[in-house]
Amino acid sequence: MSPTIPKLIGAIEGGGTKFVCAVGTDALNISHSTTIPTTTPQETLQKCLDFFLPFKKDLISLGIGCFGPIDLKPTSPTYGHILNTPKKHWSQSDVVGYFSRKLGVPIAWDTDVNAAALGEWEHGAGQNCNPLVYITVGTGVGGAVIVQGDPIHGALHPEMGHILIPQDPSDDFPGICPFHGNCLEGLASGTAIAERWKKPGQKLSVNPEVWELEATYLAHAVLNLSMILSPERIILGGGVMQQTHLHQLVHQKYLHLSQNYALSAINRAENYLSAPFLGNRAGICGVMVLASRLNC
Amino acid sequence: MSPTIPKLIGAIEGGGTKFVCAVGTDALNISHSTTIPTTTPQETLQKCLDFFLPFKKDLISLGIGCFGPIDLKPTSPTYGHILNTPKKHWSQSDVVGYFSRKLGVPIAWDTDVNAAALGEWEHGAGQNCNPLVYITVGTGVGGAVIVQGDPIHGALHPEMGHILIPQDPSDDFPGICPFHGNCLEGLASGTAIAERWKKPGQKLSVNPEVWELEATYLAHAVLNLSMILSPERIILGGGVMQQTHLHQLVHQKYLHLSQNYALSAINRAENYLSAPFLGNRAGICGVMVLASRLNC
Repeated sequence: MSPTIPKLIGAIEGGGTKFVCAVGTDALNISHSTTIPTTTPQETLQKCLDFFLPFKKDLISLGIGCFGPIDLKPTSPTYGHILNTPKKHWSQSDVVGYFSRKLGVPIAWDTDVNAAALGEWEHGAGQNCNPLVYITVGTGVGGAVIVQGDPIHGALHPEMGHILIPQDPSDDFPGICPFHGNCLEGLASGTAIAERWKKPGQKLSVNPEVWELEATYLAHAVLNLSMILSPERIILGGGVMQQTHLHQLVHQKYLHLSQNYALSAINRAENYLSAPFLGNRAGICGVMVLASRLNC
Repeated sequence: MSPTIPKLIGAIEGGGTKFVCAVGTDALNISHSTTIPTTTPQETLQKCLDFFLPFKKDLISLGIGCFGPIDLKPTSPTYGHILNTPKKHWSQSDVVGYFSRKLGVPIAWDTDVNAAALGEWEHGAGQNCNPLVYITVGTGVGGAVIVQGDPIHGALHPEMGHILIPQDPSDDFPGICPFHGNCLEGLASGTAIAERWKKPGQKLSVNPEVWELEATYLAHAVLNLSMILSPERIILGGGVMQQTHLHQLVHQKYLHLSQNYALSAINRAENYLSAPFLGNRAGICGVMVLASRLNC
């Protein structure tokens, strides 16, 4: 008897600087992967395709988690496209259509942030949390909400880096968001830290005032998310959160801001705010989960 | 052949000033109802029970939508209780336990705001919206989120009146929230309007500055909810929203605040912000829906 070759699942995590491609039997069993720099859509998508072609015969589904904004409405004429994006060349790219035509398999499609949140929900720090909120604080600030194991889409998809919070009276920085100035991303992203303090965050580890202010803004975000969604956990990841003392500082400030109103034991526990367990594998892992679900 | 008596569903909408009780065959067919003033738990719950006893033989389930904070965790030892509340006498009241013992039927239990949101989702202005956000702006500010037809609970339940938003530079009012001062409820509830302008809102209809400021705060809330959840509709109800021109003003200000970022056609449509269709019947209707679902 010849051995049965297990069916393969493919995954693409499409980011602004790189595309990660992977194949495997499930999210925890990735056998091959590659990283492709993000250039034009033509070149980048072709290189992704080249990675998958040798596996085409055994591929049963493909997942794609992509930078946004993207069209997630299955009934929309531009479903599967990237929408208007500041990323040059990529507006209106039909990503799902391309791989659907070339590979002929069912395709799961979501944002990169939703995919990463799903990865953490299924195999990381967010298991059994309902709702789970996932925030990534890096060059920008992004976030996702998982309810009963599914990422929320809605009218478009969450863009929670752009909520408006009170600016600290000590902080007269105008903010770096080209749309809103001093929204959360404008005040608290890695880009904002570097511009405000004239140095990248990694070189500011020993400056407590930097992290006091950063934690104040993130605590406002955590408070608002807690009041709106009452999540069972909030995962805080991304480059800025590599300053690992930030988690505890944000939690203390959140408890203080809440003034003990509407807190449960879950909110008070130190692990209410958690680092991601999967690190930079969360995205590709979540995309594999999305693709696997097509086969259920 | 004697006619079959249809099975009955009971509903209680428990508020800080009154309890509404109803029975009927479903949410759209309520045959009897009564209103009981909220006094002590002993007296109030007994009077509710007296209303239901004549129907006990035909009652197959009971729904309760109650003012909060309440314990919604089925696995918690205090499930079905009211938690610490400023409402005198009511902290730690075992509401579900009382009716379960007295009526012996399955009981559905949720907050009054979640129930009202569910009513609007099932039979009102929120049909087929996913997610649906429901906000009530009255004496206080409350809100709920319906995802795929179910209210979000999470660690406790949403208390979205208490999000923190930037205070308008023109407004030096300290806010009326005993916990947070100038949170959304502190700045924009009916109580806040009356204290800031020294008159109740109903007597301020002709003062445009009142509604400009009110709309500014509500637009911040709408923007934050939109960025976090990307809802397909936000229903704005409650006494303050009786100023019906507010819906349009809030929508204009929300579009301006968003700076055209991450907007879909749904967000741009005038009916993105809607008045409730069921008015003050949303709560009892939603509680009937909760109770009906126990029988599915």
